[in-house]
Order: sequence, then structure tokens, then C-alpha cells
Amino acid sequence: MSRGLFLGRFQPFHNGHLHMIKTAKDQVDELIVAIGSAEKSFTDDNPFTAGERILMIRESLIEREWLDKVIIVPIRDMNRHGIWVNHIEEMVPKFDIVFSSDKPTIGLFQEKGYQAQVLTMKNRKYLSGMAIREVMTINDTWEEYVPPGARGIIQEIGGMDRIRNLRR
Amino acid sequence: MSRGLFLGRFQPFHNGHLHMIKTAKDQVDELIVAIGSAEKSFTDDNPFTAGERILMIRESLIEREWLDKVIIVPIRDMNRHGIWVNHIEEMVPKFDIVFSSDKPTIGLFQEKGYQAQVLTMKNRKYLSGMAIREVMTINDTWEEYVPPGARGIIQEIGGMDRIRNLRR
Amino acid sequence: MSRGLFLGRFQPFHNGHLHMIKTAKDQVDELIVAIGSAEKSFTDDNPFTAGERILMIRESLIEREWLDKVIIVPIRDMNRHGIWVNHIEEMVPKFDIVFSSDKPTIGLFQEKGYQAQVLTMKNRKYLSGMAIREVMTINDTWEEYVPPGARGIIQEIGGMDRIRNLRR
Amino acid sequence: MSRGLFLGRFQPFHNGHLHMIKTAKDQVDELIVAIGSAEKSFTDDNPFTAGERILMIRESLIEREWLDKVIIVPIRDMNRHGIWVNHIEEMVPKFDIVFSSDKPTIGLFQEKGYQAQVLTMKNRKYLSGMAIREVMTINDTWEEYVPPGARGIIQEIGGMDRIRNLRR
Amino acid sequence: MSRGLFLGRFQPFHNGHLHMIKTAKDQVDELIVAIGSAEKSFTDDNPFTAGERILMIRESLIEREWLDKVIIVPIRDMNRHGIWVNHIEEMVPKFDIVFSSDKPTIGLFQEKGYQAQVLTMKNRKYLSGMAIREVMTINDTWEEYVPPGARGIIQEIGGMDRIRNLRR
Amino acid sequence: MSRGLFLGRFQPFHNGHLHMIKTAKDQVDELIVAIGSAEKSFTDDNPFTAGERILMIRESLIEREWLDKVIIVPIRDMNRHGIWVNHIEEMVPKFDIVFSSDKPTIGLFQEKGYQAQVLTMKNRKYLSGMAIREVMTINDTWEEYVPPGARGIIQEIGGMDRIRNLRR
Repeated sequence: MSRGLFLGRFQPFHNGHLHMIKTAKDQVDELIVAIGSAEKSFTDDNPFTAGERILMIRESLIEREWLDKVIIVPIRDMNRHGIWVNHIEEMVPKFDIVFSSDKPTIGLFQEKGYQAQVLTMKNRKYLSGMAIREVMTINDTWEEYVPPGARGIIQEIGGMDRIRNLRR
Repeated sequence: MSRGLFLGRFQPFHNGHLHMIKTAKDQVDELIVAIGSAEKSFTDDNPFTAGERILMIRESLIEREWLDKVIIVPIRDMNRHGIWVNHIEEMVPKFDIVFSSDKPTIGLFQEKGYQAQVLTMKNRKYLSGMAIREVMTINDTWEEYVPPGARGIIQEIGGMDRIRNLRR
Repeated sequence: MSRGLFLGRFQPFHNGHLHMIKTAKDQVDELIVAIGSAEKSFTDDNPFTAGERILMIRESLIEREWLDKVIIVPIRDMNRHGIWVNHIEEMVPKFDIVFSSDKPTIGLFQEKGYQAQVLTMKNRKYLSGMAIREVMTINDTWEEYVPPGARGIIQEIGGMDRIRNLRR
Repeated sequence: MSRGLFLGRFQPFHNGHLHMIKTAKDQVDELIVAIGSAEKSFTDDNPFTAGERILMIRESLIEREWLDKVIIVPIRDMNRHGIWVNHIEEMVPKFDIVFSSDKPTIGLFQEKGYQAQVLTMKNRKYLSGMAIREVMTINDTWEEYVPPGARGIIQEIGGMDRIRNLRR
Repeated sequence: MSRGLFLGRFQPFHNGHLHMIKTAKDQVDELIVAIGSAEKSFTDDNPFTAGERILMIRESLIEREWLDKVIIVPIRDMNRHGIWVNHIEEMVPKFDIVFSSDKPTIGLFQEKGYQAQVLTMKNRKYLSGMAIREVMTINDTWEEYVPPGARGIIQEIGGMDRIRNLRR
Repeated sequence: MSRGLFLGRFQPFHNGHLHMIKTAKDQVDELIVAIGSAEKSFTDDNPFTAGERILMIRESLIEREWLDKVIIVPIRDMNRHGIWVNHIEEMVPKFDIVFSSDKPTIGLFQEKGYQAQVLTMKNRKYLSGMAIREVMTINDTWEEYVPPGARGIIQEIGGMDRIRNLRR
């Protein structure tokens, strides 16, 4: 049995993430989705709590019927890159391959001997957390970039108002 | 929709936990199982990592077909009891009721206004993490106290050897 | 009896702060003045220690005869915005209303259900910590922007020299 | 002008503390009362928050009319004894002499060159935080050991119930 | 070229440590002596600072002419046993084999795939940090248990007085 | 006997450092070389681990035959400038004079009463960690800026590849 690790901050969870999860999931028997910077929330760059992000991902996976192949785990930051991979290893089940769209992340896992795959995010201009938070601030239509499950959670917790209030 | 929170350290996950999860689960639509002291491992009292405990719980829930009602979340310690409940609130989805077999834990949640229920562990003499770790040390039959799913994980990671090596 | 909370970093304490304390104090029976980033000192942006800032505020309140209505409390940073309000709640006496000139701060307290009031700093161009530190660096007259009590403390500890030495 | 530092945990603030503050206060122009282990609360040994302890002390000083000579400052623990004195130096105004009933504390300040005085607690069998918490647990009369001001705060926050709920 | 790692707390450095360093050193080209709990000092169990322990070891090695084969590195605690070995790996040069008299320590390195050797301390009744601190407290002759170089440092910093002052 | 302290991050150790060590070393009997930001590694600005930097310095000193006069100590960051000097005092042997090319660093030691000397780095345009990391990224000849001993270590650990992989 093979197990993969997919890393992101998911601020918020969007269609680009869903697409990358599909790519990763199809190559392994089980996929861990690790929510990075779990302790960060209510800031410009990290508006949503770990608990809220867990729900966004979970609801989006449920509507795709992907939930039983996926393990969602929040991961707190560790400001020591030299042992950050070991920190993750302790917090999640054993894994064989790592997926990420962030090259330095990939590099850190390769240093520890992991097989790692760079996923390219299609349509990065629109499909990035930063772009979507920007669109939410100016009150434009962000809904199309986010899976229905995540969208429902964002609306329920008043995500748009929160993002606007956090802007200085 | 109602959501409950069940807290434990699960060192290891055993039949007592499974029984309490059943009791809790039957009262809510969705149950969060929070793994406390997530960052602790490889000590006498906390031999297993968060990742290993996630698997023990997950495998035990899969064999009962309870997984889709349950959200498993590791929680790191916060040595400030006065805001420990708030720390958990940030890390998990919103919840309405708390279940635990530990009275001071229940008290902390009640202070913050939560409904909380003390679960009594049946057969506590045998069904406690400490008792089972003790039995594993003296090489006695521990398998009957642990659900098959968790048992498989413990065997796979050499749990008995680890517990014996950690004893001073 | 009502109690308010006024938050600032007070690097240094100046007439703008004094004016806001007056506004806040007049609306409550007791006012907590919370010194944020208490653990920061001897940096460009945070030259003064918590102990020094306590004295600056205390001396300025004494000369106005406001001291018995005010409780001064240093607060260390907590780099988790989602529970920062709870961290403050634990460190200070219970309060009913929050005053600050910083909008995101106000937002965090409102999220937790507090009544909160944005105080506008008059004459912000001159009356801000940053502006006054700048003036102190170029050796210009800063004394008029700071209450006599605070001024005395800054002179006693050699504040101007310190600020100049900390510039790179 | 001379300034003293008096250190305690004040769990709760009691007549023994009041008596020691009197002894210390009479030897200096200004006295800092430092509340140790400020971040600890809701545990067996440290039931009350920093905010609650600030109020207990403040109310007790107000009824003695000692408040204007005293500066109350909460101090968080620092688990490095070698620099704990420096940590306190940064958090409080400059001081010349240290008072405490704890000999190792006195020793740490002497190592850094401070004048320090051991205060003996009269009637230590009854007048200690531990003894009073014990009495509160068994529901016995604790009120006589605590100044009226502190007593009022403890009653207001339900201190007796809290202490009993925290016992395992 | 082979490199070994020898771990201890060295409170204080004594003849037992010297003997173990000899055993370890003779099996490798270069030996790292890692000073554990580096941030601990001025407590009963950990009276000496990292800086003082560095000198005790260094002076003892100089008088044996072993210094050029040895690298001394202080290591701060990390209260996460699961990644403690990785923490050390980041702080010291690469090593091939681990020496320690503590079995659980050996176990943690073996878990990460290291070759590890338990060193037995001869004469453990007298030659242990705890025993020697005890002897120093009761003012008995401790000097014979400690190499001359370390002895000189302990005398210079007033080690005996310190240990006695730290006793409660 | 006099002892000096020379501070740097050594990312990587280069000829400018070696030159400053010479200047410092010639004024004292023993020199401590303190490796700052010891816990940082595998980032753009801090690519090398403490362990690797210890080796770079050690090998460079060995080839100059300066090792017996020098004590190398890694120092972790402490994000409290007001007690950072005390943090260092605990981690290294006692010292009388401080050397650094960074003026604010010098200022912090002077505040605590130390004699301190600003060392000017000759040829700073080329001889700075940042400049050399830049040159390593664009694959240009960096070897001449680094002592042979350090150069060997950088090559052995694949330093150039690491620096390039860490760039975003």
C-alpha cells in the first residue's frame, strides 16, 4: 500500500487544490492532506482557522466521494527548516511520496530522501489563495474558484466580512 | 446539525475509547475525536506519535464503519489551562457538546460555557492506557483490550518493543 | 461597575495616547491600559522595555491625577491571532468594552463578542510612535509630543541615545 | 528614590502576603509587587488567572491606602533560571532591593549582585497559598486568612467552586 | 573518517565522564561531546550553565591532550522525543555512532537507524552527577571525583556555595 | 587571562570572518566564536546548519593552527533583545570584550557594560555572506572568498546545490 502527502495552507481551499488532490490521489492508495501554518488565523494572509480549513476540505471531498482515501491533518509551523520534515513525519502516518506546488518544500523533502513531485497549478493567476482573498476583499465573484463544499463553509462563517475587516 | 468533541490521548487507542466514542457518537450528528498531547511520543507515558495514533483510531473506526461521522484531529498541548479550550476551538470545527472521562477537562469546558458530559470508562482497571502499556511491558496478552484495527498498527510499528525500550 | 481596556505599544507613550486614555476613561469606571508587545525592546520599532513603558505611563497618569482609575498591565505577544483576545482575557481583570486606534485589533475583539470603539488619533502625522522615534533620531524637538512624566523617564534612561544606537 | 521588588505567586493573595508587603514597603519609596507564574491558572496549584490576582492585590491595597506606593506587574515564567532575573529586569521598572520568602529566589538575585532580604512568613502553617487552597477544598473557613478586598474577588469569581472542580 | 557522539549533562563533569570519553574516543577519529539540557542552570539538578560546563570539559581535555580530537557542543532540550535526534543532527557535525550510559537515549538513536553503544559507568555509586552534587552539599570531599581541570573551574565560580544555596 | 567574544552567523564562513578572527584573537588570550541563529538552516539567508558551520570554522582554524585559542559555540536566537546578551552569557564561558562588525550588536553589549569593538570588514562588497551566497547561486567562482577548510566542507555537503534549490 502506498501513501502520499499533499501540503498546502488552503487559505481558502479552492479548485486548484482540488485539482492537485486529484492528481496526487490517483497515484497512491491513500493521501494525507496536510494543512500547513495550522496555528495561523485572523491575519491578512491566513484568515481561516485550522478548524475551518478542515471543514472546507472535508466538505469538498465528501461531495466528490473522495473522503475515504484521504486523511486530513493540521500541521503547526516549526521555524526550523532543517527539522521541519521530521516534525511532519511525527504528526502524520508514514508516507512514501510528497506532492506540492512549492519548489523549496519539495527540496526539503528530497534532502531527507523522499520521492517528491512538483504539481503545477493551472490558471495560477486566478487560482491562488492570494488572488482569491484579493477578489473577496473587493467584493467580486469568488464563488466560481472554490468547490461548493468549501464555499458553503466560507459563507456560513462570514468569510468575506472577516477578510475585509482584517485589511488595514 | 450537532457536533460533539471527544478528547483523549489514546496511548494506545483501546476498547474503552471505542466504547466511549460509541456513546458520544450516538448523541450527535458528527463527532470530533481530538488526540491530545499530539507532540508527545517515545516516552514512557506517551509512546506513540500523533501519526501512529491517527492510524490506530482511523483503522478501528473503518472496521466499525463509523468513519464518515468522525473527524480525527491531533491537538498539541498548551501549558496554559486558562486558554486551552480556546486553543482547541481554533484547531477543530465548531462543536456543541464535549465528552471526556477526565473531570478537570470537563470543568475547563464548562467554565467556557460548554455543555459537557463525563463518560465513565467501564472496566477501568484493565481498560486504561496505563494498564495496557504495563501489560505490554511484561509481555502479557494485551491484544484483547485493543480493537483489531489499532492492534494491527501497533504490531506493524513494533509497539511492544518500543514500550519496553523506553522503560528505564 | 464598568471596566474598559485600552491597548497600545507605547513606544514611547505620547500625548496622543494620553488624549485617548482621557476619552476612554470618561466612559468607564475603571480603565485597563494594556502594554502590547511587552517582551520587545531594544529594537528600531520597540526601543523601550515593558518596565520603562510602565513608568512612562504611570508618571504621566500621576501628574494628571488619573492613576487610581487606571490599571497598567504589560501583555506579551502571542502569535496566534485566533486566541490572542483570550490570552489578554487571562492576563487582565474582566472588562466590558475595548478601545483602540487600530481597526484590525477592534475586529478581533468584536469577533469574540466585545463592544469595541475605534479611537481616532488627532494629529496622527506628528503624534505616532513612529513619527516621534524618527524625530528623536534626527535630534529634533520631540519633547512637546510627550507628557512631562514620560519625558522625564525617557531622559533618565537616555532614550534618545538608545534610539540612535539601534538604527542600522 | 529607592524601589523594591516583592515576588510571589499569590494563589490566592492572603494576609501573610499583606504583612510582607508592609515590611517591604516601609523600607523603600516605591514597591513593585511581581506576580509570578502569571500565565498559569486553572490548575490545582495555580487556580487563579493573572487578571484575577491583580484584582485581589489591588483591592487589598486600596483598602489599606497603600496603592500609590505600589506597582503591580504580572511576570510569566521563564524556565531558564540563569537568566530569569534578567527577564524580570526587563519587565519591571529598575529596583534596588529584592524581598521574598523563598531562599533560592533570593539566591538568584544575589548572584546578579542585588541586595536581597528573606522575609519570614509568620504563621506559615495556616498562612500559605497551599494551606488556604486546602482549606477551601474541604469547605472550611478560609475567609479570615485573606484580606477583605481579595476575599470579595474570590467570592465574585466563584473561587471555592473552581478549586474544588480542579481537584482530581 | 569516523565520528562519534557522546551525550551527557555534565552537572558537573567528573571522572566517570572522562573515562567514558576515553572509551568512545578510542573507537573513532573524532568525538563530539554534546552537553545536554544546555539551557538549564541554577537549579538543584542542573546547577552549572552551559558556558561553565564547556570550560570544565575543555580544561579536563586539555590536561589529557585530547582536545584536538574532540568537538564540544551545547544542546538545548527539545521536549519532543520523536524528533529530538533530528534536533541534535542539525546542531552537530555528521556522526556515525552514538555513545551514552542512558538506555532510553540509546533507544532513540537506534530508532533513527544509528549504531549506538551503551557505556557502563564504573563505580556509579560515587561517580554520578547526583552523587557528587550530594557530596558537595554536605561539604564533603568531592575533589577526587572530578578531573583537575574541571575542579579548578568549579572552585573559580564558587560551585559549592551555589549548590548549597540552591537547595530548598 | 582575557577572553573575547566574536559573533557572526557564518552563512558561510569566509575570508572576511577569518580576518576579523585574527584581529580579535591577537588582543586576547582566548577567543569565543559564537555562531548566531544556530537553529536556522535550509533557508535563503541561512542555508547551513549549526553543525555544518561548526565544521567550516573548525577546519579553517585547524589549517591556520589557531584552534587551541578558540572556543566555538552555537547560539540560538532569542527574540528578546533586552535579554539577548544575558542569554549569550549563560551559553558561553565568561568574556571581557566583544567583537562584531554589526553596530546594533555592539550597542546591546555596551548597554550591559561590556567593552566592545566594531570590526570593519575589508572588501565588504565581495566578502559578505549575502554576496557569496549570491555568487554561489549564479554558479560563479566563490571559492576564492572562503578559506580552504570551509570550502572543503561546503563542497562535501553539496552547498552550491542547496543554495540554488532554496531560491524561490
